[in-house]
Amino acid sequence: MLSEDKNWFFEQHDAHTKFGIGFRSRIASEKSAYQQIDFYDTYDFGVIFALDGILMLTQRDEFIYHEMLVHPAMAVNPDIRRVLMIGGGDGCGVRELLRYPEIANIDVAEIDGRVVDLCRLHLPGADWALSSPKVSVHICDGVQFVREVSQPYDLIIVDSTDPVGVGAGLFSAGFYTDCLRALTPDGILINQHESPFYSGDAREMVRTHQKLRHVFPVCAVYQFHMPSYASGHWLFGFSSPSKRPLADAQFERWEALKITVRYYNTALHKGCFALPGYVQELLGD
Amino acid sequence: MLSEDKNWFFEQHDAHTKFGIGFRSRIASEKSAYQQIDFYDTYDFGVIFALDGILMLTQRDEFIYHEMLVHPAMAVNPDIRRVLMIGGGDGCGVRELLRYPEIANIDVAEIDGRVVDLCRLHLPGADWALSSPKVSVHICDGVQFVREVSQPYDLIIVDSTDPVGVGAGLFSAGFYTDCLRALTPDGILINQHESPFYSGDAREMVRTHQKLRHVFPVCAVYQFHMPSYASGHWLFGFSSPSKRPLADAQFERWEALKITVRYYNTALHKGCFALPGYVQELLGD
Repeated sequence: MLSEDKNWFFEQHDAHTKFGIGFRSRIASEKSAYQQIDFYDTYDFGVIFALDGILMLTQRDEFIYHEMLVHPAMAVNPDIRRVLMIGGGDGCGVRELLRYPEIANIDVAEIDGRVVDLCRLHLPGADWALSSPKVSVHICDGVQFVREVSQPYDLIIVDSTDPVGVGAGLFSAGFYTDCLRALTPDGILINQHESPFYSGDAREMVRTHQKLRHVFPVCAVYQFHMPSYASGHWLFGFSSPSKRPLADAQFERWEALKITVRYYNTALHKGCFALPGYVQELLGD
Repeated sequence: MLSEDKNWFFEQHDAHTKFGIGFRSRIASEKSAYQQIDFYDTYDFGVIFALDGILMLTQRDEFIYHEMLVHPAMAVNPDIRRVLMIGGGDGCGVRELLRYPEIANIDVAEIDGRVVDLCRLHLPGADWALSSPKVSVHICDGVQFVREVSQPYDLIIVDSTDPVGVGAGLFSAGFYTDCLRALTPDGILINQHESPFYSGDAREMVRTHQKLRHVFPVCAVYQFHMPSYASGHWLFGFSSPSKRPLADAQFERWEALKITVRYYNTALHKGCFALPGYVQELLGD
């Protein structure tokens, strides 16, 4: 999906639609056992990090993605203590989790050790997160890791790539069933839920939601504005055996924690589950 | 701002960031007295229409922009009868207004007659709207038109280009003061309010909000996901001498109208005024 034209990183968004970010230099480029890993130093977005030519994060807007990945679940249940992060080898999601002193353990199951190593080297600001004594990094297949969980988690976050190649198993019904088993009765699953606008992303969004709905009693989807991702309109799933994302939210307790955020807030939490009509229709809700 | 590389329409989003849509053919290209006007037949977005190289609309996602331009105000005050549309020579905003049988008169003040003519020719689907007997099209400067309004409007919509060149006057404090004078006591002003992410757009967003806040007792901003616009995160302003966008909304009455929509809905109306923290901070709210 990656094409390069002199000093432009281009990502293809649709068959004949592309988004380009100009870069000063390519910082690192490596083919690991799993995927092509690239880091660029760009003019407008700081360091950007791509897997198989798809933008994973930019320094400029990753705060949006990672705040929305973590804080909605924490506002619903501020008593979360044990967290499993699947993927997220960049450390940015873990950085947001570490803002909560009450979180005692974070297991990170990242399939590609080279992602962890290269992000530590080239993404200043998130490198410290994976070194916290609360964090255990497991270089392993998240699908396998979840299957073997013995002590359940209060929160599982699936910070996956798109459902092709290495990320495909993280979008299967069997995996979601294992996640449900690996959660406490009040547990929450947050997953990267693709996007409604471009048809390839929308197809995966629909398939993912259908699978989650068969597995989880509570199954909601929320949206956020992510400028560097295709269409700028991105979704996360919120699923749980019992917790409801709005009715059970403990906004006053969350506000009392005084977490520093730049995108998330509790008014936005209430708003972000209200999806456009065409998205509801695609999801079949 | 327009660069072309064989059959790609590129719009520059930031100093070194660009978005490209591949096209089959350029349908029309003309320099009017005011601006460069271009229409392309594209693979992914249908017909697209650009002014001075900036994308105004695409057939694929204009429904989002135009629904959000019209329906939030109509849900706050379903008794709107007289509407002034400034800009909007493409007819798509008027098409949304015409879904309300109770709207009796729509004046369109469009500065560039060639925009009206070329959109009628090349944008199938919206061409009929400006021909409705309820609609009067005035080819004139909207700034001047508002200054001379004698019978006030229930709703004024400023569907402007960016605040450069021909659109600049539609972002001035004097213009907003004239809009306030041209509204009924319960009237509403909706304006194209730029975008928070890229710094050029964000600067205009802030300046616009500061001016509106000095003029209007009620002054809110709401957001939507607009894939073909820079960053995908776009804003409209909701200003009024008296009407509040949430507290005064008449959602049950709006639902009873059974307007066909694909993006807007009343839950989303409640959500879209909840802005991310970094946007609130920029706006100084």
